[in-house]
Amino acid sequence: MSDSKFSKIYEKQRAIIETRINSVFSGLQPTSLYEPAAYISQSGGKRIRSLLVQLSAKAVGGKFNDVYNASVAIELFHNFTLVHDDIMDNADKRRNLVTIHKKYDINTAILSGDGLTALAYQYLLKDCKSKNIDVVADFTQAMIEVCEGQSYDKDLENSTVFSLEDYLLMIHKKTAVLLETACKIGAKLGGGSKKQINALAEYAKNIGLAFQIQDDMLDLLGDENEIGKKVGGDLLEGKKTYLIIKAIEIAKGKNQQILQKFVKNKGITEDEIPEFINMFRKLGVFETTESEIIKYSQKAEESLKNIPESDAKAMLQWLIHQLIKRKN
Amino acid sequence: MSDSKFSKIYEKQRAIIETRINSVFSGLQPTSLYEPAAYISQSGGKRIRSLLVQLSAKAVGGKFNDVYNASVAIELFHNFTLVHDDIMDNADKRRNLVTIHKKYDINTAILSGDGLTALAYQYLLKDCKSKNIDVVADFTQAMIEVCEGQSYDKDLENSTVFSLEDYLLMIHKKTAVLLETACKIGAKLGGGSKKQINALAEYAKNIGLAFQIQDDMLDLLGDENEIGKKVGGDLLEGKKTYLIIKAIEIAKGKNQQILQKFVKNKGITEDEIPEFINMFRKLGVFETTESEIIKYSQKAEESLKNIPESDAKAMLQWLIHQLIKRKN
Repeated sequence: MSDSKFSKIYEKQRAIIETRINSVFSGLQPTSLYEPAAYISQSGGKRIRSLLVQLSAKAVGGKFNDVYNASVAIELFHNFTLVHDDIMDNADKRRNLVTIHKKYDINTAILSGDGLTALAYQYLLKDCKSKNIDVVADFTQAMIEVCEGQSYDKDLENSTVFSLEDYLLMIHKKTAVLLETACKIGAKLGGGSKKQINALAEYAKNIGLAFQIQDDMLDLLGDENEIGKKVGGDLLEGKKTYLIIKAIEIAKGKNQQILQKFVKNKGITEDEIPEFINMFRKLGVFETTESEIIKYSQKAEESLKNIPESDAKAMLQWLIHQLIKRKN
Repeated sequence: MSDSKFSKIYEKQRAIIETRINSVFSGLQPTSLYEPAAYISQSGGKRIRSLLVQLSAKAVGGKFNDVYNASVAIELFHNFTLVHDDIMDNADKRRNLVTIHKKYDINTAILSGDGLTALAYQYLLKDCKSKNIDVVADFTQAMIEVCEGQSYDKDLENSTVFSLEDYLLMIHKKTAVLLETACKIGAKLGGGSKKQINALAEYAKNIGLAFQIQDDMLDLLGDENEIGKKVGGDLLEGKKTYLIIKAIEIAKGKNQQILQKFVKNKGITEDEIPEFINMFRKLGVFETTESEIIKYSQKAEESLKNIPESDAKAMLQWLIHQLIKRKN
């Protein structure tokens, strides 16, 4: 199938999930709980996680229809993490909308995040027959690891000694695990074999890592209008991105001093951003990062070799390239 | 069996749960997530919810051993609600210890609460065979209703027009549902019949309501040292307790004005507490509340008629009286 065909399927499936997410909140009381939960859940997003559930089910011979509730569950869960993370990061905006804790208050944000977790389990269970109870265990394991990832992220923020290993462990748990779980759940509910389930989980883990590292890169090389935030925002916040850690790994002399100052001061000022971009360029950080993204993308591609050829598989391959050529 | 025999069983089972809860956190990383989660979970408490799981299993012919993980799950879940509620209530102390958001910070409290939810599911699943997947649905339903209850509580806090019905809906969801679910899960995992499961759930719902209304009463008639907080603390905070709502329902003239001022100002000052206690006494609020507690206790007692006689059933009956004669 052609690229435009895949885009159309993506849009169609995304619209189905939007409708289903809307209906989750219809008629629920009290509004003090469900209005904010609906507000974040209906604020868009790429719905990549739900697409992964669906394509994984299909790629192993299942039907989209078997996993719509599980797809909704993954998105609700993802939104729960956004609501709580935004409180912790004191973020003002999310998907160009005011965050829940700013629009309402922190208590409302805490509670609607909790409510979204519960709804996520409720929807997941709708697609679980008794033979698939281990899908609930997978989902729970994901929740545990996402919490761990968020904690590792906070630890990394406050730490002055760190390595790429720390970073990779953190983004694996914080970001990749949920994609992995989306594919695992889709493949299990779709009736896949153990080998297929593992292959799809491996695929998702690798696109998760590629995705997150690319996110770090877009912060510096992306277009301000497309990424929806200031170029270099991560540098201002003192975030330990792939690029910063890589730079620290290879820089010497003056550059190393500048980088250590960044760590000590937990960030730089806006006027220092061009200097950092320039330094990264000279150190070859962008090339190294680019090849890291390609490495994980290729691993994702290779993981699919155990999956029989099908349109769904082709679309999973297409998705890798979509994520890599993305601008936001 | 005698009272002292039941006390011994209670202490023995509580000790088993304490040991199991301690082992939940052993070796888990990162400590930034699990240390605060362990701190609250190991801070004691009556462990009534885990006892209900165990006794319900036993009362329908199951074994304690079948439900230890589910018992741990219920306690972990309960602790999650305490951590998040304490943030929302800006509480300084819990079980005579500094609350997590005060000892660490709000972000740590949010995240360790989330982590506890995930661990609760993980432990629940350990006791669920594939035939018991609906136990996970019950647990999820409890989580949904507990969140709703907390939201109703916040709504009630800010509302100037309210009824005993609003109050009962709130305490049902916020408190009684989890006790109900403890018994339901215990009875299901213990292999109980539908009739037995419903009977035990009904029992727990009623002790939950009795328990909460008594909590409101202890705030005014309890001993400061035993309840571990100031007598009349609920009045200072402007909480809409059973007693306040009952008083508003029956008071006239001057008393009604005083009560409306309480609602408008969201509480009273310390020197006004004796006046309120006096007013409640004159209005017969304490007697009415007492008979309400007895009504729910009797309902709990009656619910047990569908459960065959056994030591476990006798202990469930004993538990009703323990809760009613409690001083804290």
